Amino acid sequence: MSARRRPIEYADAPAEVRAVYDDIMATRKTDWVNDFWKVLAHDPPTLRRVWTNIKEVMGPGALDPLTKELLYVAVSASNGCHYCIASHGAAARNKGMTEAQYSELLAIVGLANETNRLVTALDVPIDARWR
Amino acid sequence: MSARRRPIEYADAPAEVRAVYDDIMATRKTDWVNDFWKVLAHDPPTLRRVWTNIKEVMGPGALDPLTKELLYVAVSASNGCHYCIASHGAAARNKGMTEAQYSELLAIVGLANETNRLVTALDVPIDARWR
Amino acid sequence: MSARRRPIEYADAPAEVRAVYDDIMATRKTDWVNDFWKVLAHDPPTLRRVWTNIKEVMGPGALDPLTKELLYVAVSASNGCHYCIASHGAAARNKGMTEAQYSELLAIVGLANETNRLVTALDVPIDARWR
Amino acid sequence: MSARRRPIEYADAPAEVRAVYDDIMATRKTDWVNDFWKVLAHDPPTLRRVWTNIKEVMGPGALDPLTKELLYVAVSASNGCHYCIASHGAAARNKGMTEAQYSELLAIVGLANETNRLVTALDVPIDARWR
Amino acid sequence: MSARRRPIEYADAPAEVRAVYDDIMATRKTDWVNDFWKVLAHDPPTLRRVWTNIKEVMGPGALDPLTKELLYVAVSASNGCHYCIASHGAAARNKGMTEAQYSELLAIVGLANETNRLVTALDVPIDARWR
Amino acid sequence: MSARRRPIEYADAPAEVRAVYDDIMATRKTDWVNDFWKVLAHDPPTLRRVWTNIKEVMGPGALDPLTKELLYVAVSASNGCHYCIASHGAAARNKGMTEAQYSELLAIVGLANETNRLVTALDVPIDARWR
Repeated sequence: MSARRRPIEYADAPAEVRAVYDDIMATRKTDWVNDFWKVLAHDPPTLRRVWTNIKEVMGPGALDPLTKELLYVAVSASNGCHYCIASHGAAARNKGMTEAQYSELLAIVGLANETNRLVTALDVPIDARWR
Repeated sequence: MSARRRPIEYADAPAEVRAVYDDIMATRKTDWVNDFWKVLAHDPPTLRRVWTNIKEVMGPGALDPLTKELLYVAVSASNGCHYCIASHGAAARNKGMTEAQYSELLAIVGLANETNRLVTALDVPIDARWR
Repeated sequence: MSARRRPIEYADAPAEVRAVYDDIMATRKTDWVNDFWKVLAHDPPTLRRVWTNIKEVMGPGALDPLTKELLYVAVSASNGCHYCIASHGAAARNKGMTEAQYSELLAIVGLANETNRLVTALDVPIDARWR
Repeated sequence: MSARRRPIEYADAPAEVRAVYDDIMATRKTDWVNDFWKVLAHDPPTLRRVWTNIKEVMGPGALDPLTKELLYVAVSASNGCHYCIASHGAAARNKGMTEAQYSELLAIVGLANETNRLVTALDVPIDARWR
Repeated sequence: MSARRRPIEYADAPAEVRAVYDDIMATRKTDWVNDFWKVLAHDPPTLRRVWTNIKEVMGPGALDPLTKELLYVAVSASNGCHYCIASHGAAARNKGMTEAQYSELLAIVGLANETNRLVTALDVPIDARWR
Repeated sequence: MSARRRPIEYADAPAEVRAVYDDIMATRKTDWVNDFWKVLAHDPPTLRRVWTNIKEVMGPGALDPLTKELLYVAVSASNGCHYCIASHGAAARNKGMTEAQYSELLAIVGLANETNRLVTALDVPIDARWR
C-alpha cells in the first residue's frame, strides 16, 4: 500500500469537495486547481479547514498581497518544502515578483538561517531596550 | 568555563573591532551597537564577515527595506530565534511595521509551517505547469 | 564516488550483519528486510546498535504498539523524512491504522507546527500552574 | 518597544475576544484560559481562527482524545516548543497519560529524530512495495 | 504538575540507576554526573540505553575524540540545544578545543545553514560525478 | 514558469561570473565548477558573496581542512540537504575522509539529534559549573 495518495479529480469528487474546488477557482479567478488540494481531498474536513485558513490569512489585510506571498515563500524555502516554493513562488510571480526580488528573498533566507544559528549558539541575551 | 561570551564594549575593543562598530553605527545612523555584534567581536574576522554580509544583503536592492526586514523576522520566527525576532522586529518597527502587520506576518508563518508539513508528509509531486 | 550506498543483500552479508537481519525478520515475523537496514549494513556496529534501540523502544511498554507507530510517523512527518513516513506508515497500517486515522494524525502534525511557531514567536511564558 | 505582548485578561477584552474565551472554557469544562490565548488576543481574527482549528482538529474523531494529545506533545517535543510541551502535556495528563507513557513518548521522539537523520543522510530510496 | 523533572541524586537513586552513574563516572574519570543523566533517571531503561549509545558512539573509533565532540557541538548548535552546546562544548574544551577553534566551528555551522537553504530552495540536482 | 533555474555555463557567463568561476577553479586546483555555483550565477552579487564567504570560512584556520569539511557534512546531514552532503562529502573524501569515518560521523549526527530532542523536551537547566 502506498504512502502517496493520488489526486481526486473534479469529476470524481463528492459534492463537499467540489464546493471547495469551486471556491478555490472563484477566489483565484482561474479554472484550475493544483494537486495539493486534490490530494488533501481524501480528507474533506481537512481540505475545507485548510482552504478556509489559507483564504482568510492570505486574503486582504494589513500587508499587501505580494508581501504575503513573499513571506510564504521565505518560510517554505527555509523549511525546504519544494512543492510550497513552487506553488507560492508561482503565486508570487503572478502578483509581480521579479527574478531579482526572488534572488534577494533567497539571500535573506540564507543569511537569516546563518545568523539565527550564530545567535542561538552564542546564547546572546536580548538587549534591555528590546525587552 | 562558560558557554556564554560577554559583550566586548567599544572602549575595550581592538581597532579592527571598533572599525566594524563604527560602520554599524554610521550605516544605521545611531550611536548604539546591539549585543549580537559585541559578542561576535570575540572573533573579529567573523564579526567583519557577518556584518559585511548583512550590510550588503539588507541594503538597497530589488525589495523595499521594510519587506526585507519582514522576511528576516518571518524566517527567525519560523526558526524560533528569540533574539533575532527581537532585533529584526525592532528594525521592522523602525521602518514602519505596524502591530497589525506583525500579527499578519505571524499568521502566515504559522500557516506556512502547517501546510509545509502537510505537503511534505503527503509527498505531493510538483504540478506539471510549475516544473 | 557516490554519496549513496547500495543495499547489502543477505547472500552477500557477513555473519554479524546476517545475525541482525535474522533478528529483524524473527521479531517482525516476516521474511523480508527493508532497505534502510541493508544500507546501514555498511557499518555493522551502527546497524546492530540502531536495531537494538528500535527493538527496545518500539517493543512492548506503557503505550500500545499502534500508538507508538503513530508517534513515530508524526515525528517523521514533522521532519519531512519520506522514507520514515513510508516505512513506519506501513508498520502503523499493519497494526490497524485506518486512512481516517492517518488523515487525523497529519492534521495534528500540521496544526502543532502552526501553533508551535506562534507560541515560540510570541515567547509566551509558561503559565504558573504548569511550572 | 518589547517583542513580548502582555496577556489580555477577560475583564479587559472586547466582546469578540470574550466570546472565544467563553468557548474555550465551555469546551474544556474549566473556568480558566491559559496565556497563549490571552496573548493571541491582541489579534482577534487569529485568536478565533486558531481556536476554531484546535477545537475541530483536537475534537472527537478517528483517534481517541489521549492519542491525539500524545501526537501533539510528540511534535512539540521534536520542535522544542517548551510552552506547547507544558500545555499539551498537561492536557495529556488530564486525559490519563502516565509518567511511564510520557517517558516512552520521549524515547520514541528521540529515536525517530536519530533514524530520520540517518535515513535522510543516506538517501535511502523507498522500497518498491511501499511506493 | 510540572513539565520539568527534578534531578535524581546518587543517594536517592535505585541500584540500576547508580550502576549507570558509576559507569559514567568511571568512563569519564570524574566523580561528577551532570544533570541530563539525573533527569533521565526517572526512566531507568532510557537512561541505560542512551548512556550505552553515547558510550559506544563517542568512544574510540575512526575519528579522534576531539573531532567527535566538535561534530556533536556543531549539530547541537545547528539545532539550538543550549544544554547540549554547554555540555559537549565543555567536553570539547577538555579534549583541547581552543576558543579560536570554537569560533571557526560556529562560522561553519552558520554558513552551512545558509548554503543548505540556498541549495534546497534552488533545488539544484546533484552533479553527475557525485551520483 | 519553473522554480528551477538552469546552470549558467562558463561560455555563456558574463565577466563578473567568469571571474568567480575562475577563482573557484584556481582555489580548488581543478578545471571544474559544480552546479551550485552555476545556478547561483543567475544572481551575480550573491554568487560572489557566497563564494567569498565559503573561501574565507573553509580556508586555512584554527581547524584542519578535513575537520572543517566533516563539520559541514554533519550540519548538512542534520538539515537533510542532499546536494550539500554530496558536494561536501566529496570534498571530505578528497581530503582523506574514509568510509569508516563517514559512518562514525553519521552515527554522531543521528545520536546528537536524539539527545538534543530529549534534553530540549525535558528542559534540563544548564549545570552550574557550565554557566
